[in-house]
Amino acid sequence: MTDAPAPLAEPDIDRRLRGPVRVVGAGLLGASIGLALREKGVDVVLDDVSPAALALAVDYGAGRRPEDGDDPELIVVAVPPDVVATVVERELAAFPRAVVTDVASVKTGPLERLQASGADVSRYIGSHPMAGRERSGPTAARADLFVGRPWVIAGHDAISYQRAAVVEDLALDVGATVVPMEPDSHDLAVAYVSHAPQLVSTLMAARLQEAPDGSLGLAGGGVRDVTRIAASDPGLWVQIIGANAANIRPVLTDLRDDLDRVLAALEDPDGQGSPRTIAETIAAGNRGVERLPGKHGTTKRFAQVVVLVDDTPGQIAALLQFIGEIGINLEDMRLEHSPGAPIGIVEVSVVPEQEQRLVEELEGRGWRIAAAWA
Amino acid sequence: MTDAPAPLAEPDIDRRLRGPVRVVGAGLLGASIGLALREKGVDVVLDDVSPAALALAVDYGAGRRPEDGDDPELIVVAVPPDVVATVVERELAAFPRAVVTDVASVKTGPLERLQASGADVSRYIGSHPMAGRERSGPTAARADLFVGRPWVIAGHDAISYQRAAVVEDLALDVGATVVPMEPDSHDLAVAYVSHAPQLVSTLMAARLQEAPDGSLGLAGGGVRDVTRIAASDPGLWVQIIGANAANIRPVLTDLRDDLDRVLAALEDPDGQGSPRTIAETIAAGNRGVERLPGKHGTTKRFAQVVVLVDDTPGQIAALLQFIGEIGINLEDMRLEHSPGAPIGIVEVSVVPEQEQRLVEELEGRGWRIAAAWA
Repeated sequence: MTDAPAPLAEPDIDRRLRGPVRVVGAGLLGASIGLALREKGVDVVLDDVSPAALALAVDYGAGRRPEDGDDPELIVVAVPPDVVATVVERELAAFPRAVVTDVASVKTGPLERLQASGADVSRYIGSHPMAGRERSGPTAARADLFVGRPWVIAGHDAISYQRAAVVEDLALDVGATVVPMEPDSHDLAVAYVSHAPQLVSTLMAARLQEAPDGSLGLAGGGVRDVTRIAASDPGLWVQIIGANAANIRPVLTDLRDDLDRVLAALEDPDGQGSPRTIAETIAAGNRGVERLPGKHGTTKRFAQVVVLVDDTPGQIAALLQFIGEIGINLEDMRLEHSPGAPIGIVEVSVVPEQEQRLVEELEGRGWRIAAAWA
Repeated sequence: MTDAPAPLAEPDIDRRLRGPVRVVGAGLLGASIGLALREKGVDVVLDDVSPAALALAVDYGAGRRPEDGDDPELIVVAVPPDVVATVVERELAAFPRAVVTDVASVKTGPLERLQASGADVSRYIGSHPMAGRERSGPTAARADLFVGRPWVIAGHDAISYQRAAVVEDLALDVGATVVPMEPDSHDLAVAYVSHAPQLVSTLMAARLQEAPDGSLGLAGGGVRDVTRIAASDPGLWVQIIGANAANIRPVLTDLRDDLDRVLAALEDPDGQGSPRTIAETIAAGNRGVERLPGKHGTTKRFAQVVVLVDDTPGQIAALLQFIGEIGINLEDMRLEHSPGAPIGIVEVSVVPEQEQRLVEELEGRGWRIAAAWA
C-alpha cells in the first residue's frame, strides 16, 4: 500500500535483536512493532485471536503467520489491558525459552497477577512505549510510531539483567528511547502525566455539553488545549483507568479537595479568605506547570514570539524558512486560528537570548509581530 | 527562497471612528487599542493613574497625554476588573457627550453597579475583546493584538442602536470581529470557554507539584495541553474569577459531582457499575469536545497526518512549503517533541477529502508519515 519511507538519519544497520520475535495482538501497537522490526530484517511472527485482524496485519507486511516449530527469542504481548496477564502466562508456558514482555499502560497489576499464578516471571519483564494515541487497528500501524518516544522498561528482581536486555534491544530497534523504571514508579508516573490529565480533560469537556450554542464561538486556544485529549476512546480508557485506579484516586482526591476549597470561595467571592484561596490555587498551578520539562528533556523556559500570517501553508513555510535562514533554532511552535478571520497566528518559541534578534529580523522583513515576551 | 510576506488584506483606509478616543488605563489592552487606532490616524488620548505607565505608553506611540478641552467621541476604560464600574461612572460624569465602553472579562457586574449608582447608562455599553493572554503592561502592547479575534459587544436596553455603533466602529477599526451578546449570555459563555477551563487546568497543574521527579520525563502532549493555561497570572485571575463566580460555580459544581462519581468508581474499579460510570464519563467528554467549533467557526472535523521531520526549522518549513505547492490547505498544525530525540513530529490537519492525496504526495517525495487518519 505504501512505499518505504526515506531514511530519517543514518540507518541502524546493526540491529540488536536476532529474532524471531513473536507479537501477540495485531492492533495498532503490535502491528507497528511488527512493521518496525520487519524494516530491520527481523523475522516477525504475528498472532491474534481475531483471524480478520491477523490477516490484515499480515497483508500489511507486519509479519508472518505462526508455524509449527517457531522458537521465538522474544514475545511481545500487545493485547487489551484486561487480558495482558492471561496472555503473558499462556505465552510463558507455550514457549519455555522465550523472554516475554507486554506493552500495556499499567505495569504493576500484570506482574502481581503473574507472580501469584506461579508463572515463570524470570522470563517476563513488562514495558510501556509512550506512543500510539492514534486510532486503533492494524491499518493505523506505522513503522515509525516509536521513533524518539520514551519506552519504559519496568524491571523487577526475578529477571536477570542479561535476559531483560532483549527488551531494551526491541525498544532501540524500533527507534525508541529506553527509560528504566520500577513498575510501581511507572504506574504512579502515568497517573500524574497521563491518566489524571485524561480524566480532568474529560470532566471539563463533558461540561461543554451544556454550554449555550453561542458561547462556543468564543472558544479560544485555552479551552481547546484543555479538552483536546477528551476525544479519547472510552473502551480503551475504561480499562486503563480501572487498572491504575489505586494510583489515580489519590491524585484526583487531592484535586477534588482543592476544587471544594475553590467552590467554597466562589460561594462568597468577596468574603474573608476567598480571594486568597483563589490566588493561592492559581499560584500552585503556576508552580506545577513549571515542573514540566521543556523540549528534549530540559526544564528551560522559552521566549514566545507571535507572528500574524496569511492563513496559507506557504506563508507559514516562508516564516519558518526565514527563521532557519537567520540561524535561530525553533524550540516549539503553535498555530492558532481566529473564528471568522483568514488570519493565522503562529506562536514560535525560542531561547530567551534569541527573542530580541528574532523580533528585529522579522520586523525588518515586514512580518507582523502580534506579541513577544520572554 | 523566502518571499517577503504578502499584506494580510487590503488596508482599511476608511476608518470608521472620527475620534478623538480617550483610553483610560495604559496596560496591555489600553495601549494596544491606542496603537491600533493611531495606525488608522485616530487621535488617541491616554490616561492612567500611574504616571510611569502613562509616560511609557505615550513614548511607545499609543496616544497623547490629556489636555484641557478634550472632547472625546468614545472613551475606552481598560482598567483592572475591580475598578471598572468606578472608573466608568467617573468618565460618564466628566465627559457628558461621550459614549463609554470597557474591555473587562465580565460584563454583568459593572452594568448592574452603574445602573444602581444612577449613572447615565444610556451612554455606556460594555465590551470584551477575546485577546491578550500575553504578559501585561504597555510595553507588551501591539497594534495587531485584536486582528481576527472576536470582540463581544454586550448590549442593553438603555443605550440606543445609534450610540452603540461607535463601539462596533472601534472593534472593526482595530481588526476584530464584532460579536453582539447580552451581558449575562457573555458572562455565562466565558464561564464555560474561559474561566472554568482556567481553573480546571490550574487544579490539574497544581497536582504536578507532588509528582515524583522521574515521572515528568514521561510527559507527552496530553498533560502539556491540559496544563498550558495554568501558567496564568494569579493577580488578574483572582479578580476575573471573583467577578464571575456566580456563573463559574454551577459549572464546577457539576464537574465536582461527576468527579465524585468517578472517585467512587475508582474505589472499586471492578465493582458493579464502576466500568460503566468511567466509560460514560469519557463518552460525555467525547460529546462535549465535539461541540467546539473548528477553524473559522465551522464545526468540520479534519483528517490528521503525522509527519516525522528533522528537528530544524528548515525541515518544517520545507514540509509546509511542499504542502502549499501541491495545493493542499493546512487547517491546523501541531509540533510535538520527543524527550531526548532530535526528531520533530508535525501533525497537520486537512479536510478529510485531501488526506489520501496528501499522504501519497508526501510519501512520493520521501517524507516519513508516522500516522494518518480521518
